[in-house]
Amino acid sequence: MKERIIIDMDEVIADPMGAMVDWYEREYGGTVDYVKMQVGSWSKGFPEEHQSMIRERLHEPGFFRDLPVMKDSIEVLERINSSYEVFIVSAATEFPNSLKEKHDWLRDHFPFFSWRQLVLCGDKRPITGDHMIDDHVRHLIHFPGKKYLFSSPHNVLVTDYVRIHDWKEAARIFL
Amino acid sequence: MKERIIIDMDEVIADPMGAMVDWYEREYGGTVDYVKMQVGSWSKGFPEEHQSMIRERLHEPGFFRDLPVMKDSIEVLERINSSYEVFIVSAATEFPNSLKEKHDWLRDHFPFFSWRQLVLCGDKRPITGDHMIDDHVRHLIHFPGKKYLFSSPHNVLVTDYVRIHDWKEAARIFL
Repeated sequence: MKERIIIDMDEVIADPMGAMVDWYEREYGGTVDYVKMQVGSWSKGFPEEHQSMIRERLHEPGFFRDLPVMKDSIEVLERINSSYEVFIVSAATEFPNSLKEKHDWLRDHFPFFSWRQLVLCGDKRPITGDHMIDDHVRHLIHFPGKKYLFSSPHNVLVTDYVRIHDWKEAARIFL
Repeated sequence: MKERIIIDMDEVIADPMGAMVDWYEREYGGTVDYVKMQVGSWSKGFPEEHQSMIRERLHEPGFFRDLPVMKDSIEVLERINSSYEVFIVSAATEFPNSLKEKHDWLRDHFPFFSWRQLVLCGDKRPITGDHMIDDHVRHLIHFPGKKYLFSSPHNVLVTDYVRIHDWKEAARIFL
């Protein structure tokens, strides 16, 4: 039986932070503080007076539909998908407009995944498997299998987890 | 620690079959054959020449937004939600237009559930918990906890599972 890998979407295969930073710098000419993100949330890197606007933008239709794809994730996941039972599990129900957008985004960029392999949830507590790759400790902490923290500016201070820095490293671990 | 109950949506707390039968009888004046549903799929109860149309209607925007609520489910689940960790887990990604509609429907009819308690997936294999209530054997079969088959015309011939006939009976079991 194939081992099951649970893979997160945002900051792992999709890049909402990168998209938000690009948009913010273009529209506002502002600067993002990557050190302030280290409290565990990338939205904290934006100036305080703009954080509620950043939050609102996450709820707007369209935001999650056109996100950039994380480097090497397509090539590596196509190979991982042949050897493992893969589920893409995204904490998405907080942003109801993102639900269909995340489905459509995945179908467009990762056509080798079927709709059967996508899980959209709020809390990842009921999800089980052999391996989980996620950028948030709050999702990894309850998982019963092996846990891998996918590196992101908001989690650089976390020390208790095996880290995956990028998809080339994931390929070395899983393939 | 509270026990976790995984509860299905369609045919358990929402009634897509009932909504489809009502619509079909109203629009086509046709008759539905409940015996033919017993192969495990309620769509088989519609005349063969209309089955592809029934299937298409499931994909149309709006279908899942206005479904009737299953009798007694709101009152009983509000009480269950106080004593258990409840997740509503729906096989929905096959119908991308249903994703936000299912979120909105749940928020409107079951406002005591938060977005954290909703899981929209294709395959329920990675879902774990202490109890699962579902009308489909294909979802119950892989579940590691206690399994309860929620009665529906399409599953009347199934004999291998503990059955829940309605939400009054669920109240007697769980409360």
